[in-house]
Amino acid sequence: MNNLIFNRLMPKETKFFPLLNEIADVVLTSSDLMIDCLSVPTYEEAVEYYKKIKEQEHTADVLIQKIFNELNTTFITPFDREDIHDLADSLENITDGLNSSAKKVALYHPLHTPDEAIELAHLIKKAAVCIKIAVEELEKLKKNLPSINQQCENLHQIENQADDVYENFITRLFKEEKDSIELIKLKEITGELEDTTDLAEHVGKVIRTIVVKYA
Amino acid sequence: MNNLIFNRLMPKETKFFPLLNEIADVVLTSSDLMIDCLSVPTYEEAVEYYKKIKEQEHTADVLIQKIFNELNTTFITPFDREDIHDLADSLENITDGLNSSAKKVALYHPLHTPDEAIELAHLIKKAAVCIKIAVEELEKLKKNLPSINQQCENLHQIENQADDVYENFITRLFKEEKDSIELIKLKEITGELEDTTDLAEHVGKVIRTIVVKYA
Amino acid sequence: MNNLIFNRLMPKETKFFPLLNEIADVVLTSSDLMIDCLSVPTYEEAVEYYKKIKEQEHTADVLIQKIFNELNTTFITPFDREDIHDLADSLENITDGLNSSAKKVALYHPLHTPDEAIELAHLIKKAAVCIKIAVEELEKLKKNLPSINQQCENLHQIENQADDVYENFITRLFKEEKDSIELIKLKEITGELEDTTDLAEHVGKVIRTIVVKYA
Repeated sequence: MNNLIFNRLMPKETKFFPLLNEIADVVLTSSDLMIDCLSVPTYEEAVEYYKKIKEQEHTADVLIQKIFNELNTTFITPFDREDIHDLADSLENITDGLNSSAKKVALYHPLHTPDEAIELAHLIKKAAVCIKIAVEELEKLKKNLPSINQQCENLHQIENQADDVYENFITRLFKEEKDSIELIKLKEITGELEDTTDLAEHVGKVIRTIVVKYA
Repeated sequence: MNNLIFNRLMPKETKFFPLLNEIADVVLTSSDLMIDCLSVPTYEEAVEYYKKIKEQEHTADVLIQKIFNELNTTFITPFDREDIHDLADSLENITDGLNSSAKKVALYHPLHTPDEAIELAHLIKKAAVCIKIAVEELEKLKKNLPSINQQCENLHQIENQADDVYENFITRLFKEEKDSIELIKLKEITGELEDTTDLAEHVGKVIRTIVVKYA
Repeated sequence: MNNLIFNRLMPKETKFFPLLNEIADVVLTSSDLMIDCLSVPTYEEAVEYYKKIKEQEHTADVLIQKIFNELNTTFITPFDREDIHDLADSLENITDGLNSSAKKVALYHPLHTPDEAIELAHLIKKAAVCIKIAVEELEKLKKNLPSINQQCENLHQIENQADDVYENFITRLFKEEKDSIELIKLKEITGELEDTTDLAEHVGKVIRTIVVKYA
């Protein structure tokens, strides 16, 4: 009986894994570009990195449409569909968050980049690595269970760290920054980066949901 | 066989089309009012238009509740239900976006209205026209396929144009506006308008999803 | 046969009610703490209340994971699942909203707390009481129908009142506050509180949806 269910479900899902892995790669690439976008010495270079991140976001968008179209034309049980949909969606949200962060750097042109922004970008990169591993391992869910759970736990820890970095920065910003326009710029850029770590943690929650159902 | 499916699905859905069309009309009316709200010479007149947009948003709210109640008490397959729900929801989001934009005009009372805000309102109106056509044509999906696809493509193009208008404006705003409170006002009003064009593009994505499934 | 269905479905659902009631309790506790957070005389005390609200948010998070895991491992019809999921989710959103509001008080350290912020907190508390009653009564839906409907109507009224409080405050703030950094702080704190009343009204909408289906 168990085998029957396995046979009925698995073959239909397997074709989604390569696509999900591709999106996880885009997330990882975008997170690398974000570090560069914040670390380069000139504004002009930062804008170039924003454009690259925008391209990645577009790539993710195309991949997600591919997955959604596949989901809508493939016979698959509603729950599998829902899970793949949620996972793809939550991955794409990260590329959106990175794109919005980089866009704000390009549009606002802040006078300087605070260390905390770069720190947040590194935390997003760390999260992207965990996500890449977990998504890859999902295909052999039962075998990889301990590692997948570990990645989800890591994502939760990373989000907590990002929270601390962000909270300390904002407290300091409101205490020290007297130029209100610079304050707005930095508050929003770091806020968007912090939101992106929430989105990364959310991927972990979606994966945990899948684990609970199928492991 | 095809006919069987047609018979099984269509009659149940047809009653939703008039309601969806009504919401599309509300979206269109709201977008017209938004142009007026931003173009009138006095603040007092702008507030009057905000109130009219708020009424439209309330009308959309009532229509959406009607659709949701119908959906919940009508026997219909889960997928149709989900699609109608998503479409109705995405339409209502536009009236919400317009309401929030107009509300910000009324609450913030900016010293002047930038041309770019009016430009964004015109783009939303253009999008609302595409949406109205596409929703109307959905009832005869197969026959109208090329036009529906064209409307979705238009919505995507309009969003790209809105993006450019918004990005250029924000870059200029942060460069030129020295009054930080005016900067906040204009940044948020145009940001809300730009978000609304995203919401309009999203309607296109929902429609494309439906097209992929049923065409 | 009917009995068979009853046996198969009912016992599994009843166990969700205690969990939903627990989340409703957390919402109520958080709303009480929010009033304190805004009313205490010193910043240090406000931060203490923020920490308590954060703990409540964590408690809600744990409860929600419990519900989701139960939902994913319990056989239950898709619609019941969806409804319980939406209700739990909408309840947790309120604790998130309260947490974000209190966090902004702690991070921004505004020079003073406007009366309207406290007024909004009292409205959230009022909404939390209505929600607690409605969630409790859901278990005996048919018997409690008039009261449940009344609570949903109350939530709608409370949101309208919060809207007026917020709108009047923001209009005044932009007219009178000349310190742009204080303006940002107060605008965002009261904005988050007002958003939270929207989230409370949304619980009412989710409950109405359930009522329409099962009453």
